[in-house]
Amino acid sequence: MKQIAIYDSTLRDGAQAQGISYSVDDKLKIVERLDALGVRYIEAGNPGSNPKDLEFFQRVRDIKLRHARLVAFGATRKVGIRAEEDTNLRSLLAAGTPAVAIFGKSWDFQVREILRADADENLRMIGDTVRYLKQQGKEVVYDAEHFFDGFRASPDYALATLQAAADAGADWLCLCDTNGGNFPDTIHEITGEVAKRFATPIGIHCHNDSELAVANSVMAVKAGARQVQGTINGIGERCGNANLCAIIPNLQLKLGFACVPEHSLATLTSLARAVAEIANLPLNDKAAYVGADAFAHKGGMHIDAVVKTPASYEHIDPERVGNSRRTLMSEVAGRSTLLARIQALAPGIGKNAPETKRIIDRLKQLEHEGYHFEAAEQSFELVVRKMLGKHAPFFELIEFKVMVNEPSGAGANSSAMIKVRVGDETEITAAEGDGPVNALDKAARKALERFYPAIGEVRLTDYKVRVLDSRAASAAKVRVLIESADQHESWTTIGVSTDVIDASWQALVDAIEYKLARDQERQAAVSLRPGVYNRNIR
Amino acid sequence: MKQIAIYDSTLRDGAQAQGISYSVDDKLKIVERLDALGVRYIEAGNPGSNPKDLEFFQRVRDIKLRHARLVAFGATRKVGIRAEEDTNLRSLLAAGTPAVAIFGKSWDFQVREILRADADENLRMIGDTVRYLKQQGKEVVYDAEHFFDGFRASPDYALATLQAAADAGADWLCLCDTNGGNFPDTIHEITGEVAKRFATPIGIHCHNDSELAVANSVMAVKAGARQVQGTINGIGERCGNANLCAIIPNLQLKLGFACVPEHSLATLTSLARAVAEIANLPLNDKAAYVGADAFAHKGGMHIDAVVKTPASYEHIDPERVGNSRRTLMSEVAGRSTLLARIQALAPGIGKNAPETKRIIDRLKQLEHEGYHFEAAEQSFELVVRKMLGKHAPFFELIEFKVMVNEPSGAGANSSAMIKVRVGDETEITAAEGDGPVNALDKAARKALERFYPAIGEVRLTDYKVRVLDSRAASAAKVRVLIESADQHESWTTIGVSTDVIDASWQALVDAIEYKLARDQERQAAVSLRPGVYNRNIR
Repeated sequence: MKQIAIYDSTLRDGAQAQGISYSVDDKLKIVERLDALGVRYIEAGNPGSNPKDLEFFQRVRDIKLRHARLVAFGATRKVGIRAEEDTNLRSLLAAGTPAVAIFGKSWDFQVREILRADADENLRMIGDTVRYLKQQGKEVVYDAEHFFDGFRASPDYALATLQAAADAGADWLCLCDTNGGNFPDTIHEITGEVAKRFATPIGIHCHNDSELAVANSVMAVKAGARQVQGTINGIGERCGNANLCAIIPNLQLKLGFACVPEHSLATLTSLARAVAEIANLPLNDKAAYVGADAFAHKGGMHIDAVVKTPASYEHIDPERVGNSRRTLMSEVAGRSTLLARIQALAPGIGKNAPETKRIIDRLKQLEHEGYHFEAAEQSFELVVRKMLGKHAPFFELIEFKVMVNEPSGAGANSSAMIKVRVGDETEITAAEGDGPVNALDKAARKALERFYPAIGEVRLTDYKVRVLDSRAASAAKVRVLIESADQHESWTTIGVSTDVIDASWQALVDAIEYKLARDQERQAAVSLRPGVYNRNIR
Repeated sequence: MKQIAIYDSTLRDGAQAQGISYSVDDKLKIVERLDALGVRYIEAGNPGSNPKDLEFFQRVRDIKLRHARLVAFGATRKVGIRAEEDTNLRSLLAAGTPAVAIFGKSWDFQVREILRADADENLRMIGDTVRYLKQQGKEVVYDAEHFFDGFRASPDYALATLQAAADAGADWLCLCDTNGGNFPDTIHEITGEVAKRFATPIGIHCHNDSELAVANSVMAVKAGARQVQGTINGIGERCGNANLCAIIPNLQLKLGFACVPEHSLATLTSLARAVAEIANLPLNDKAAYVGADAFAHKGGMHIDAVVKTPASYEHIDPERVGNSRRTLMSEVAGRSTLLARIQALAPGIGKNAPETKRIIDRLKQLEHEGYHFEAAEQSFELVVRKMLGKHAPFFELIEFKVMVNEPSGAGANSSAMIKVRVGDETEITAAEGDGPVNALDKAARKALERFYPAIGEVRLTDYKVRVLDSRAASAAKVRVLIESADQHESWTTIGVSTDVIDASWQALVDAIEYKLARDQERQAAVSLRPGVYNRNIR
């Protein structure tokens, strides 16, 4: 089976997307996920243009990667200086990654119009930069920006840029369809021609401006490319980059190319959802292979046929990519996935034990209602722990009242009154806020701090709302995710309701319950025991 | 220039998508939009399987189509009866459309396993059905379900099914990749082979399960297909159908095929957005050609380059499909589009008049804030009319207070108090509701009905909420669309805010103001004058 090196750029080219702004923690989480999937390269940032990336490259050294090599990304040296004098190249090296990617111009029009450089100087820039980075012991990928447009305009010059990189020792020549405007047959033909001429292995980097990036990437592989650059869920500038979540199964399941370890392909759906949640770009339900609707059947005739024989309306078995079949009659969640996660939390629990069935039934019911535990592990833990009788609530809500006033009163437009019970005591208090949820959050913490001063250590670090089915008029469900942190760790909790205030309340309660349970566990000095509540500590 | 017949199935195959449930009014609106774009065929329903479609086919006769032919969709006759005895075929004919599409099985495996029919009887079913429909004077499209999978398994049988349709007089043979599992080179090769063998023109119908539907459709056209079936925005079951919003510009702007009238291509973005709103399936910002981000540039280097020369990071000029370039520094909305709409409302207004500039600036600012007037024409009219000094508010809000209680009181969890002023009088009242918005809506109507009894005629027919940028933590903006109706007409209004209650309030106010202004206009007997507020009356 031919090997294809999967080169993920979710953290670099993906970061160019509108609406994306990764924190360093977000990036570290994504690196761990990508490595677990088994991609070969993780292009993680551009230290020359983004100072935040330097902090990332410092911290990522603590992660032990099993499959992937980290790649730092930068440009060829500036016009008219030596490579070793270039400050951006110095930042690139300071990232300390085993591999680097440098992009250069391969379209003579761009050299003249954008770079405003001499065509020969551009060739020297490419050669000098690659040579210098090879001297520093790096694996070097040369990204030929606008290669296909360049080749169509001036094939000799486009090839000369590749030759300059190859002669200087580049390990990969990556052909880019930077504007995303080319067609699969063109990509196939040009890639084939390049692959014949060079001994250096070829990569492909496509954009989706014509909704052809997956097809173009696959056709390049058929023509001889052996590295595919792309991003998870196709995240990227404009219409996005080539979507690895479609390319990997297309190549591996249908064309017999080995992209990732066979067993890890079944984690693809879970990875796609996790990255979507971390990036907070909703995963398209209709995404090929990994979308929630990818194997959903609505028409009665289709459902009958799929039940008779799945191949009638399914191009692959959904379990091969960790997805599952859904029909409007019966939601079939991934039982084996759930079981694995329950056992990770409570190692003693048997596969066929009655409580296992009860917990799975409950989780499936919650997922059906719109709970999405992929992104809210701590709410998941609370559900499991409650079902096992291992979690007793720390407080009870007696009532709250939230008020929104127009025009707003003295500064804040919203206020909340809350009354809670802890043991035999009750507390009633109130707070103002910017919007009803903010007011309720403040009031709840204020009421509980008297009993549990440690609540003062909790910061609410992220708050996300998503409308689940806006078609259902005013009864539309919303999903709220709350991320909290203290000095030890961070955790994410979830709430779902037709009322945004109720959904937020559920997530807030879980956030507080989790904090208090973890503190109790730490105090009992059992925090090193594996299992429920033993999170990786910062 | 070669002609390609665009065959839209947004209303039929698109209706198979999860979450889609068109009303008859929705379908009529989409028919008008598609005809204005200039598609050749509109496949509008399956009268045999969906009784609601019969009402649609009745009402659609009142619409005068300029470009499109309507198509009703059904299956070949049942096993072992004559075509004229088949009740589904009778329903199909009752739709009264000039064209019909019938699907039949072209994969012998499906004939055996799903249809459980004899291979020869299947051929007779195809031939009989086509012949009967031709006798009834219909243009007939034969949809060869699973054609590509069938051809790969048993080429002779797959071709025999086409032959049966062609011999019986079919006008089109449409090759379907029903499961969406085939690759562009396979589609190209097989389509080419079929096109060589048959004099009957060939169509292509692809699904997006491998994220290849656009590529597959384009490659089929390159191999000789002359009809392309697909849907607006790729709406459809599972991963969706082939996306016409990418296929049409790919074929027309880049490959020189004529799909729609040249001038109407510039309405593609507006059409895509309108259909997304009607179907209430959010248009993907990253959609090729028509997405909000399709020509959005974020990286500083890219913005500089695009300003120097657009071709550096744009594969086409966005105006050709009615989209526009956006950069993070300056939002550039479609000024000419806005001007055309303002002039439609106030015909006297000059292109260079200072108030035109003021109105456009205001509208652009509102769009930047997340107002989306494509779907809320009546809010748009109110903005323009207010800027022209032609609308005086009918009431003034003094204050409201909305309360949410947990646990809920007697039945309803929310209540609202409102105080309004009309002229010199004020009114204060309250109402309960299911959720805070519902309570506020009821209270506002109750307060105003004393002054304007006609408000009692208004029904709130749809309410949609969308979170615009959930990344912005608790300050995320939401967009609310409210559709209202009275005995004369229906109208849609919009509100945008970080607070869902405030956004809903804005849309409610517009809904009420519009109703009262229209009534006033009707009473003044000027309702036949063209211009602001003169809506098409039901």
